[in-house]
Amino acid sequence: MSFTVTPIGRLRTPWTTTSACPRNGRRADPPPLCHAELLAEFRDGLQSIEGYSHLIILYWLDRSTAPEMVFTPPFDDQPRGVFATRTPRRPNPIGLSVTKFEGIDADGRLRLRYLDCVDGTPLIDIKPYLVTTDCEPEATMGFQRRGS
Amino acid sequence: MSFTVTPIGRLRTPWTTTSACPRNGRRADPPPLCHAELLAEFRDGLQSIEGYSHLIILYWLDRSTAPEMVFTPPFDDQPRGVFATRTPRRPNPIGLSVTKFEGIDADGRLRLRYLDCVDGTPLIDIKPYLVTTDCEPEATMGFQRRGS
Repeated sequence: MSFTVTPIGRLRTPWTTTSACPRNGRRADPPPLCHAELLAEFRDGLQSIEGYSHLIILYWLDRSTAPEMVFTPPFDDQPRGVFATRTPRRPNPIGLSVTKFEGIDADGRLRLRYLDCVDGTPLIDIKPYLVTTDCEPEATMGFQRRGS
Repeated sequence: MSFTVTPIGRLRTPWTTTSACPRNGRRADPPPLCHAELLAEFRDGLQSIEGYSHLIILYWLDRSTAPEMVFTPPFDDQPRGVFATRTPRRPNPIGLSVTKFEGIDADGRLRLRYLDCVDGTPLIDIKPYLVTTDCEPEATMGFQRRGS
């Protein structure tokens, strides 16, 4: 059993190679402006999106290499399971970023901050970020330190 | 261009039809216990997941009908774009839930709360919820009211 994902557009970021991508798109001050470009047939789906301050962006990590179930992350000293990390090398290489949404340009592109993927990454979904179901200020982060 | 998603397991919930599913998996008090069952070949990927209190679950909404770019949501009085809502009828029907993680059963199933999908839904990814990148307490929700 398998399913087919079809891109709805592309993400535009300042990083042209995976090695140039930041480990965390929020680290720079200010985080650089990025864009989501939708294919024409999906643009009507943006209606009423203006009032959200944040959007969840899903994308296909098309440059990621084969998944590893267990690996030692950079800046870590012991092996971790893939599902305990946000590595791109996942069984289904879907990336997820909670982004700051700063409006829609005249050409229809969404202005976003906090992305950290490579320029041209296929966009597969846009979801509104809902404080009522997506925000967990008390969440604990396992072996990951807040600064990492 | 398209990509192939292969399920890594299934979600087990109390709801056997889509019409029985709650609109929001957090509404019940207490929210019912659900499970994520991983296929054997992916179970090593759970290593070090124990310390997280919350997980982001991605799943394939395999019962959803054809996407609509614009529709009038239930409990709303005007049309909205698909990307301004969390409807299952999306171009790529990927569901996302931020869940409370309560440990792993002896049989390897993850104990989760706040899911709202139908029993048997294909699981496609598990990601740790990171307060540093996923939590936006000040986010505004556009036309959606906090109570809805």
